[in-house]
Amino acid sequence: MLTFSKKAQKMPASPIRKLVPYADAAKKRGIKVYHLNIGQPDIASPKEALDAVKNNQLKLVAYPNSAGNKSLLEGLVKYYKGINIDIDTSCINITNGGSEALQIALAVTCNPDDEVIVFEPFYTNYNAIALQNDVILKPITTKIEDGFALPPMSEVEKKITPKTKGIIICNPGNPTGSLYTKEALMELGAIAKKHGLFIYSDEVYREFCYTDEPHFSCMHTPGLEENVILLDSVSKRYSLCGVRIGFIVSKNKEVMKYVLRYAQARLCSPAYGQIAAEGALDTPAEYFKEVRDEYIHRRNVLLEGLRKIKGVVVPTPMGAFYAVVQLPVDDSDKFAQWLLEEFEYEGQTVMVAPLAGFYATKGLGTNQIRMAYVLKEEDIKAALKCLEVALEHYPGRVK
Amino acid sequence: MLTFSKKAQKMPASPIRKLVPYADAAKKRGIKVYHLNIGQPDIASPKEALDAVKNNQLKLVAYPNSAGNKSLLEGLVKYYKGINIDIDTSCINITNGGSEALQIALAVTCNPDDEVIVFEPFYTNYNAIALQNDVILKPITTKIEDGFALPPMSEVEKKITPKTKGIIICNPGNPTGSLYTKEALMELGAIAKKHGLFIYSDEVYREFCYTDEPHFSCMHTPGLEENVILLDSVSKRYSLCGVRIGFIVSKNKEVMKYVLRYAQARLCSPAYGQIAAEGALDTPAEYFKEVRDEYIHRRNVLLEGLRKIKGVVVPTPMGAFYAVVQLPVDDSDKFAQWLLEEFEYEGQTVMVAPLAGFYATKGLGTNQIRMAYVLKEEDIKAALKCLEVALEHYPGRVK
Repeated sequence: MLTFSKKAQKMPASPIRKLVPYADAAKKRGIKVYHLNIGQPDIASPKEALDAVKNNQLKLVAYPNSAGNKSLLEGLVKYYKGINIDIDTSCINITNGGSEALQIALAVTCNPDDEVIVFEPFYTNYNAIALQNDVILKPITTKIEDGFALPPMSEVEKKITPKTKGIIICNPGNPTGSLYTKEALMELGAIAKKHGLFIYSDEVYREFCYTDEPHFSCMHTPGLEENVILLDSVSKRYSLCGVRIGFIVSKNKEVMKYVLRYAQARLCSPAYGQIAAEGALDTPAEYFKEVRDEYIHRRNVLLEGLRKIKGVVVPTPMGAFYAVVQLPVDDSDKFAQWLLEEFEYEGQTVMVAPLAGFYATKGLGTNQIRMAYVLKEEDIKAALKCLEVALEHYPGRVK
Repeated sequence: MLTFSKKAQKMPASPIRKLVPYADAAKKRGIKVYHLNIGQPDIASPKEALDAVKNNQLKLVAYPNSAGNKSLLEGLVKYYKGINIDIDTSCINITNGGSEALQIALAVTCNPDDEVIVFEPFYTNYNAIALQNDVILKPITTKIEDGFALPPMSEVEKKITPKTKGIIICNPGNPTGSLYTKEALMELGAIAKKHGLFIYSDEVYREFCYTDEPHFSCMHTPGLEENVILLDSVSKRYSLCGVRIGFIVSKNKEVMKYVLRYAQARLCSPAYGQIAAEGALDTPAEYFKEVRDEYIHRRNVLLEGLRKIKGVVVPTPMGAFYAVVQLPVDDSDKFAQWLLEEFEYEGQTVMVAPLAGFYATKGLGTNQIRMAYVLKEEDIKAALKCLEVALEHYPGRVK
């Protein structure tokens, strides 16, 4: 009999994608849907990246090296030097987006039933990637009232068992928008060092920090060189989600040796994406300044609007382009579906991501949503108006 | 302590890539190396594919759908219709090359320790992909004296156990260049049907058949719709190895449902690669005719040259662009390394792939190599001359 793997049957359908059929149906009814549900920015990719692809002179699109094109790796060494991360090309392996970076990092370091600590709420695909590697995610809950800051380190140490292989952090955070302090990261590094744990440091939102301090990377922590596996990507940085170029970066030579074997097993990362990524490295500083100013502005528009709505709680995100919002509703899953299925305001509605799927602990996040402020001001304002009216009419509204 | 996974430590270094440092060293000594070791054709990609990318109008390279761009999927439906495979877009999911197609197909269908039958010698990366999924490959040896044809079906049935989930075939074959007959494939299909097994049918070399018959796909077998998972790719077909676009195709709706979940876990396949692949679908028939004529010519040049060398045995490959060659040497691994490390003829040498790594059974293939006839006639001739002289001087020569 034809049967399917247990993993395939357990593989979670994305909590965001679950809503897509309802959004599609709403659109078919002629309703305009504001997509604040997904981290797909509307910001144009840098001209330097687009032009590099349009002007490429390839006559034959051959296999790039499994580790990545030499010229891209060399460009990345310079990029990292510019943010005070001193590495050479042997410390980088290009991957098919940041997703594959985490996939390979876990595959290289974890045996089945090994445990990895993660701070919830976290990016939902971590669940699927852990499942693929038979890795058990051990969540530590961070709280909306603390702005989703890292918990006291005593809580982290409590979670460490002989099965623990490492700690995943996402900084700035998806979905929380929180930015961890240097002090907290140094403490976390000390624990990783003490217990011999890897730190899988997802820093794909590095350029989206809204403080005046430069971003502090785990790669900056002295003495932690062997422990840190940096997961990176051009997707958000340059609004190049579709090129599928990410990187694994580590100073641990053994990590990089095994990463290369996994990279060889899927041959290479896409040639055109690597050309785009290399072009993107020439993006002028003004691009980032403009993008950052735009996101700060959008964030402020979102926060101002949300804080006017009764019963809504939202901390101030200091990075990325997400906000976790607590709503006066019975169940944010139901509410998000209701917004698409039953609600409209002047022919418009809003799509948001219910947050329960971003927690590993059952029952958490059921009155929270993630909003991605990836749309322009007027769209955010229109979406906020929809949300405000919706909360007045939603039958599952609570006080 | 920082440790690594058992799988990472078992992950085979590619038997071809093992030799790369020796080739690089030879080149540094000023020696010209003819690369007959790897299936990277020197044939230009079709202008239609290259131009589609150069003329693209994307301003923002956003995430494509996890299943693939609608327009590409629709184009593929037409392509398959043209080769008598009648499907709709819901039967296709775009993947990151053919490698990911097999990776996801095994992940979806196999639990740890499940068995998959494979005919050896086989494409070496099957080993790495099986290992990643904890799948045990059960090899059935095919023989050079039979031109690596499928064995009698009684041998296949003998290998089936309660743990067997399916059978991988590669047709036309890498590394053998063999083309399975319709009759043998129908018999194999009957066995799959009878025992409830999947057929993972790797047909990436479909356009490279050197008979006058049209290629017979497992998708053509009546009644086998639920069993067949077609693994496909634009890499070889359009000389687009670097774009990383493959496909999983199946009429089994449950297969496609689970495939999509895995596809969602890595978000999407590359946007530019999908544009190239869509452009490639407009490649005129003359391109394929010219390429096919060129490969037949190269194959004939290779066979004629090899058959003049004493002690060399080579069957006539009827597909793909590889030939398995039996040599009068003690160990083809050592010989291939010696060619790069110690030999030269008029400042030139040849790089070939030792075949032991293409067998799962230890001890087989030790006097065989794979030669990829991916270079132009004069280079193949020069490489053959090197091989001939080398075999006269190689200290491990046997009778």
